[in-house]
Amino acid sequence: MLIRLGYDIRFDVDRPVPMVAILNVHPDRRQDLQEPDRLRVDPSVGTEEYVDSFGNICTRFVAPTGSISLTNSTVIRDSGELDAAGTEAREVPVGELPPGVLRYLMASRFCEVDLLSNTAAELFGGTAPGWARVQAVCDWVHQKVTFSYPHARPTRTALDVYTERVGVCRDFQHLAVTFCRCLNIPARYATGYLGDIGVPVSGTPMDFSAWFEVYLEDRWWTCDARHNAPRIGRVLLATGLDATDVAITTSFGSARLSHFTVTTDVVS
Amino acid sequence: MLIRLGYDIRFDVDRPVPMVAILNVHPDRRQDLQEPDRLRVDPSVGTEEYVDSFGNICTRFVAPTGSISLTNSTVIRDSGELDAAGTEAREVPVGELPPGVLRYLMASRFCEVDLLSNTAAELFGGTAPGWARVQAVCDWVHQKVTFSYPHARPTRTALDVYTERVGVCRDFQHLAVTFCRCLNIPARYATGYLGDIGVPVSGTPMDFSAWFEVYLEDRWWTCDARHNAPRIGRVLLATGLDATDVAITTSFGSARLSHFTVTTDVVS
Amino acid sequence: MLIRLGYDIRFDVDRPVPMVAILNVHPDRRQDLQEPDRLRVDPSVGTEEYVDSFGNICTRFVAPTGSISLTNSTVIRDSGELDAAGTEAREVPVGELPPGVLRYLMASRFCEVDLLSNTAAELFGGTAPGWARVQAVCDWVHQKVTFSYPHARPTRTALDVYTERVGVCRDFQHLAVTFCRCLNIPARYATGYLGDIGVPVSGTPMDFSAWFEVYLEDRWWTCDARHNAPRIGRVLLATGLDATDVAITTSFGSARLSHFTVTTDVVS
Amino acid sequence: MLIRLGYDIRFDVDRPVPMVAILNVHPDRRQDLQEPDRLRVDPSVGTEEYVDSFGNICTRFVAPTGSISLTNSTVIRDSGELDAAGTEAREVPVGELPPGVLRYLMASRFCEVDLLSNTAAELFGGTAPGWARVQAVCDWVHQKVTFSYPHARPTRTALDVYTERVGVCRDFQHLAVTFCRCLNIPARYATGYLGDIGVPVSGTPMDFSAWFEVYLEDRWWTCDARHNAPRIGRVLLATGLDATDVAITTSFGSARLSHFTVTTDVVS
Repeated sequence: MLIRLGYDIRFDVDRPVPMVAILNVHPDRRQDLQEPDRLRVDPSVGTEEYVDSFGNICTRFVAPTGSISLTNSTVIRDSGELDAAGTEAREVPVGELPPGVLRYLMASRFCEVDLLSNTAAELFGGTAPGWARVQAVCDWVHQKVTFSYPHARPTRTALDVYTERVGVCRDFQHLAVTFCRCLNIPARYATGYLGDIGVPVSGTPMDFSAWFEVYLEDRWWTCDARHNAPRIGRVLLATGLDATDVAITTSFGSARLSHFTVTTDVVS
Repeated sequence: MLIRLGYDIRFDVDRPVPMVAILNVHPDRRQDLQEPDRLRVDPSVGTEEYVDSFGNICTRFVAPTGSISLTNSTVIRDSGELDAAGTEAREVPVGELPPGVLRYLMASRFCEVDLLSNTAAELFGGTAPGWARVQAVCDWVHQKVTFSYPHARPTRTALDVYTERVGVCRDFQHLAVTFCRCLNIPARYATGYLGDIGVPVSGTPMDFSAWFEVYLEDRWWTCDARHNAPRIGRVLLATGLDATDVAITTSFGSARLSHFTVTTDVVS
Repeated sequence: MLIRLGYDIRFDVDRPVPMVAILNVHPDRRQDLQEPDRLRVDPSVGTEEYVDSFGNICTRFVAPTGSISLTNSTVIRDSGELDAAGTEAREVPVGELPPGVLRYLMASRFCEVDLLSNTAAELFGGTAPGWARVQAVCDWVHQKVTFSYPHARPTRTALDVYTERVGVCRDFQHLAVTFCRCLNIPARYATGYLGDIGVPVSGTPMDFSAWFEVYLEDRWWTCDARHNAPRIGRVLLATGLDATDVAITTSFGSARLSHFTVTTDVVS
Repeated sequence: MLIRLGYDIRFDVDRPVPMVAILNVHPDRRQDLQEPDRLRVDPSVGTEEYVDSFGNICTRFVAPTGSISLTNSTVIRDSGELDAAGTEAREVPVGELPPGVLRYLMASRFCEVDLLSNTAAELFGGTAPGWARVQAVCDWVHQKVTFSYPHARPTRTALDVYTERVGVCRDFQHLAVTFCRCLNIPARYATGYLGDIGVPVSGTPMDFSAWFEVYLEDRWWTCDARHNAPRIGRVLLATGLDATDVAITTSFGSARLSHFTVTTDVVS
């Protein structure tokens, strides 16, 4: 399956603002690209590409006064298969986890592992370890939290999701990630493209999506507490501890979003 | 100047608990060691040493049921000089910072950069950029927050410090780190040995200490919002985004601290 | 000046839900009513009217399964004058306040007086006491907080307003009320009718409005941190410690709002 | 049974500070007093006694610069019986509660009813209504929260207790009160004398104690999530929405506690 990916994101800025964009396909998927995956910045400014400590491809530049657009259009080959289920995957004792994975057990800005540990143990401590426990977390979050665009807010933490029970995709994943870490299952936040492939068309404007990954047996597995069903055609952009680390764009100063479209279409 | 360093930390555990210790001198100071810097775990258990994504030396092991002690005694050569002041150090525009430094502008578990940005701008926006602004942050935190051991608590965030105005050394540094990041000055949390060298003996039991570092001109500079005065003889153990990343020990399960002594003495 | 007041508020409920409505003009303004001020509940259910501990007229009933509407239409005589300014009003030392006023110095659900005291002292401690200090509070809140309907949320506290700097009218008043209490100036939250009288028509659908009152000299004075300008034609419904106490309707169970219109028109 | 009650509370103040004390036996128990219940303030200052909106006897005065002591010694007759259990008491539907009781269903500073409603429903929704449900709340809080004087802090809310699982008596009651209100059971916070009568001597210095009351059938019943067992000899001082309303002393300015003893002894 071939999927066309792209975006057109525009900002207005009143004075030059440094920005970091994470708008390239993740290194793990670069071998699948059928066309160049090039972030175009217009007007043309000097850009610097680097890989952050999580392994994501970042681009930074200084947005000049005025309007600036970030665009891209590329094609990626995808297996067309549903997310793999780690049904048989063993939960790895903390003492045997690869050292680089341990950071994904820690608390972060939007994931208060310290504050939700008791709740996690009470809710999920009786479930069989491994994939079943992760699935129980996803089921709980999916059932208990109501999706609502008007209730989006950038400061909502996992504890806020737990108490307010409402949010957008990032909120679902933050709470699920936190519960998993509380249960000593490494979990990381993921962001990327997720089109309406193999599912009814949602009718809402296409956007980037958030999901998360857990480490079981010997690798990371895709999970999604918002949709809570295997999906086709996720294309990973970036992973990190939480939304702080993998924002599509981070502005170090004021920038007003003026336009935002994302493309994720199957190429027939 | 030679400083003898050491500790004797003991836990009781009821069932095997995986632990990570950051109890070796930071790689930046290893060339100053005059004796081996070896974390001894007793009873002897298999340990694994690794370097985390922040560059700290970590040791992990599984504490068996019963009592376990972590001990060390070593000697380090120190310049005997006070912390350097970056008075002339230029504040680097975000667009010119080394990519690896950008993460130290982001929010983290105990540093809600997003929530304190306006306050930081109001309090410090009128100060000259660079070292003077960092010094203004340290002065403010030092004056406004009252040091109090009985008020220590592990869940206090920078925003809590801002509202409660009380805390221990980690709290002072969390608030100062957060304000610096809000002002687009990279800041990281540091932990290490800090003896009563060149200052009146404090009378309280020796402990590890927290301070922080800011990135100005072309390097990291030591700051300390708790003491707010240059000190002699800091020996760095670890740096990270906040206390989450550089806990002396992190237990993935229940472990009761039963003994805790730290040594930091000038060798005459 | 005569003002026609009214509303049409409808809910859908799936099972009988007890409700309390505060939808009658406040006792202080009843002598100005030109027509009966009668809350009609349709379908007709048994209602009980009582005065709560704040002096507000409350009506309670059990909404039966199905749709229920709360309607009213009345006319009130108004002075047509702008809110009085307490420019000359003396700030009363706490030791001389009437005992019944002291509760309006305390913390409440949305007004964390304990957490914002230091900030209030730092921001307003240098201002002359009394009306000037209240005005400084209103000016600050008005300038620093951005009005935004999409950012409304029912759980936002004064501290959240202070950090997020965005909100709707209740948020402006909560922060201002909290600052006043921190400064030992009694303040209470108010809700009522406020039409576009003497000001350009806002263009947004009419709603009830929130403002607040401070106690200076020997009485309560009207303040409004959202509009921050004297207005004509406020008609008070209720006062309380914060929005918790004076919700237009409180449901003890699930009720979905299906329709909401408010009328506040000058009768020519 | 006769119980001698008393206290000796002293403050140092640097400048005159208005204070409110709630240090008289509650009106409901005044008929049991065998000696005058007189709050003595030394040095002698003008005091004013009033009854607040919750029905508590309050005394206010301005503490002059220097040291001030609040003392009392009285004797009360007590039934010597254990707290009554409302085992047979019916839970009253909200629609039938006396109007004056409805306020005890609302959120307050330390009781975030709005934030804990879902959790309360999940934990206790399956329990039989009435006393059994209240008992389930007390059992849960008693088992899940660890008592610890060193972990006392004045800003801890019910949600904080829920996440931190540690606290002193006020914290236990705040969480239990909140859960009850979430379940539509009116609950109010209570403070008073509670000696070691009929129980082993605790060994810790005597203090005032907090408990709470729920409204079932036709009256208020005593509950205590900290001790979670019926006790002998409670003497009520005050009730309110939470600790904000019934602080033993509230200072409107800085006052340092220098001495604190409480007496609650059976007179043999």
